[in-house]
Amino acid sequence: MRMFFTPALLAGLLSACQTGPAIPAAPEGNTPSPADIIAASQPSEWRTLDPENTLYMDFPGKGRVIIELAPAFAPNHVTNVKALSREGYFANGAVTRVQDNFVSQWAQAADPARPPKVGVEKLNAEFTLPRTAIPGFDILPDPDTYAPEVGFVNGMYAARDKGRVWLTHCYGMVGVGRENDENSGGGTELYVIIGHSPRNLDRQLTVLGRVVQGMEIMSSFPRGTGDIGFYKTPEEYQRYADIKVAADLPPHQRTPLEIMKTDSASFATLVNSRRWRKDDFYTKPVGRIGLCNVTVPVRAVAQAG
Amino acid sequence: MRMFFTPALLAGLLSACQTGPAIPAAPEGNTPSPADIIAASQPSEWRTLDPENTLYMDFPGKGRVIIELAPAFAPNHVTNVKALSREGYFANGAVTRVQDNFVSQWAQAADPARPPKVGVEKLNAEFTLPRTAIPGFDILPDPDTYAPEVGFVNGMYAARDKGRVWLTHCYGMVGVGRENDENSGGGTELYVIIGHSPRNLDRQLTVLGRVVQGMEIMSSFPRGTGDIGFYKTPEEYQRYADIKVAADLPPHQRTPLEIMKTDSASFATLVNSRRWRKDDFYTKPVGRIGLCNVTVPVRAVAQAG
Repeated sequence: MRMFFTPALLAGLLSACQTGPAIPAAPEGNTPSPADIIAASQPSEWRTLDPENTLYMDFPGKGRVIIELAPAFAPNHVTNVKALSREGYFANGAVTRVQDNFVSQWAQAADPARPPKVGVEKLNAEFTLPRTAIPGFDILPDPDTYAPEVGFVNGMYAARDKGRVWLTHCYGMVGVGRENDENSGGGTELYVIIGHSPRNLDRQLTVLGRVVQGMEIMSSFPRGTGDIGFYKTPEEYQRYADIKVAADLPPHQRTPLEIMKTDSASFATLVNSRRWRKDDFYTKPVGRIGLCNVTVPVRAVAQAG
Repeated sequence: MRMFFTPALLAGLLSACQTGPAIPAAPEGNTPSPADIIAASQPSEWRTLDPENTLYMDFPGKGRVIIELAPAFAPNHVTNVKALSREGYFANGAVTRVQDNFVSQWAQAADPARPPKVGVEKLNAEFTLPRTAIPGFDILPDPDTYAPEVGFVNGMYAARDKGRVWLTHCYGMVGVGRENDENSGGGTELYVIIGHSPRNLDRQLTVLGRVVQGMEIMSSFPRGTGDIGFYKTPEEYQRYADIKVAADLPPHQRTPLEIMKTDSASFATLVNSRRWRKDDFYTKPVGRIGLCNVTVPVRAVAQAG
C-alpha cells in the first residue's frame, strides 16, 4: 500500500520534529574526564578574559566573584554598569535578596535611594537581538524544552529561533533586575541564577554576563525570609566592598582567567564526553545533555616565570 | 505534485517527533498565581504526609529538614533507611559534602566506620521499575531533554519510557550515595540535589524521596573545598542531631504537612498557569515548562481548634 501526501502536508507533519545537526555518536570505550580533556587541549583553544569586560565583586572574608560581561548581547547595559562602577556607585553594596532555587540579587545598599550620577537607572530592555547580529553560535543539538535551538556564543549560554537570539538563564548567568516596566532596569540591581535554571525568564529580562569564578559564594548565602527572598533587615545583608571593572585595577590585583573557546575541538569533545559519559561510576551512557548541564571550563592563566 | 511514502517510511520519519498528549492551550488573560490557585483548591486535592514514610533531619539552630520517602520506587532502600533510623545509626550525623551546583550529602560522621547493626550497608540497586509497577503517572506533555516521557507520581518527579519508570534528579530530590558498584549503596549515605538538576544521574542511582521542607537549609551550607566538594576537616561538618521517622515521634513533635495531589484539577491548573505565566511582570507567555521547573505545593496542615 502507498500513501499520498502533498509536500505541504508533509512539511506540516515534520515541523514538529527536531531538526538541525544530529547528536554526535558515542565515543568508543570510557569517556575522558574534563580534567583529561583540559590537559590535552591546545593553548589556542582558550581565550583570556578581556579586563574591560570583566567585573570583580569582592566579598571581605569570602573572596572574589568574577563576572564576564557580554557586550554583544547587552551593549547599553554593559556600558552603563561600567559607568556605575567607575563613578563609585557600587561601593559598599550588598546582596539584599537570596531566594532559594532562584536568584541572589545585589544593589547599592548603603543608600538605596541614592541616584547614579554618571550612569543611569533605566535603559531600554535588551532582551533579544536579531539572529543576524550574532554570527558565531555553537549549536548544541540536544532537544531543549524552551527554545528551538540552543548553544553557546563565546562561552555564554544562548538560544535562538528563526528571527532572534538571546542569552539563557542557566545557573551562574547574570541578569538585570527590573520593575514591571520592561524598560525599568539599567544595572543598578543585578542577579545571578543559583538554582535549577529558570528558563521561563528568557526573553523577559536583560542578561548581561556570567559568573566565571565564585559561584560557591553567591549560591551559599542564607536565604532571605522576606517576600520573594529579600532579607528582612539590613543586618542580614551580605556586603561586598565594591564592584570594579578589572581594567581599572593594576595588573597585580587582577585575577587572570581563561575560558575554553566554545567553538574549539576540545569543547566539542568535552560536551560529547559528558553527553555519553561512561566511566567506572556512570556505566549507562545517556546520549543527551541539557544546555544548562554543560560546564564551560575556566582556569587560571599559567603565569610566566 | 504528490509524493509517495510507504507507511514504514512515514512511521520512521515521524518517530523523531514529540508524541503523547498535547500541551494545553493558554488560559485567557492573566494567569492566577500559585497562591491564588492554592487558595481556591479543594481539601480533597491535598494529601497529608504519611508519618511512616517521612523523615525529619533536625539541624540545631537551623531547623528541620523534612523528606518524603517514595517506597513505591525504592522499597528496600526505604525499609533500610527506616531500620537505620530506628537503631540510632543516624544520631549525631553530619553533612560531609557540599558540591556547588550539585549535591549536599550526609552520613554517619561521628564514626564513619561504625557498621549498622539492624540495617545494612549495601542493597541491590533500585534505579528503575517496570513501567507497569507504577500505574498512576501524571504526564507533563512538554518536551524533555533526557526522557521520552516525564511527569509526576504522587508528588514525585518521574520519567518513563516504553518499558521502565524512574524518579528523576530534580532540585530537592534525595538519592542514595554509592561506590562504583551499582549495588554498593544502601542508605547509610544520602544526598539531595542543590543546583541545576543533573538529570544525567537518572537511572544510575537509587532515588528514594524528596525534601518537602527545609531545602533552604540543605542548599546554603558552605561549599566543601576538598575533592568533589567534601569538607576537608570534621570541623567543617554541618551537624544534625538525628534523622527520625516521623511516626516515631509523639504527635506534638511532628510537623503536619500536606502536598497538593499531582493528579488534581488544581495541580493541572497550576502547571498550566506557570507554563503560560502572564502577569504584570511576565508579559510573554512561554507555553512550555520543564519538569524540574514545576514546584509541587506543600503547606502546613490547618490545625483544628
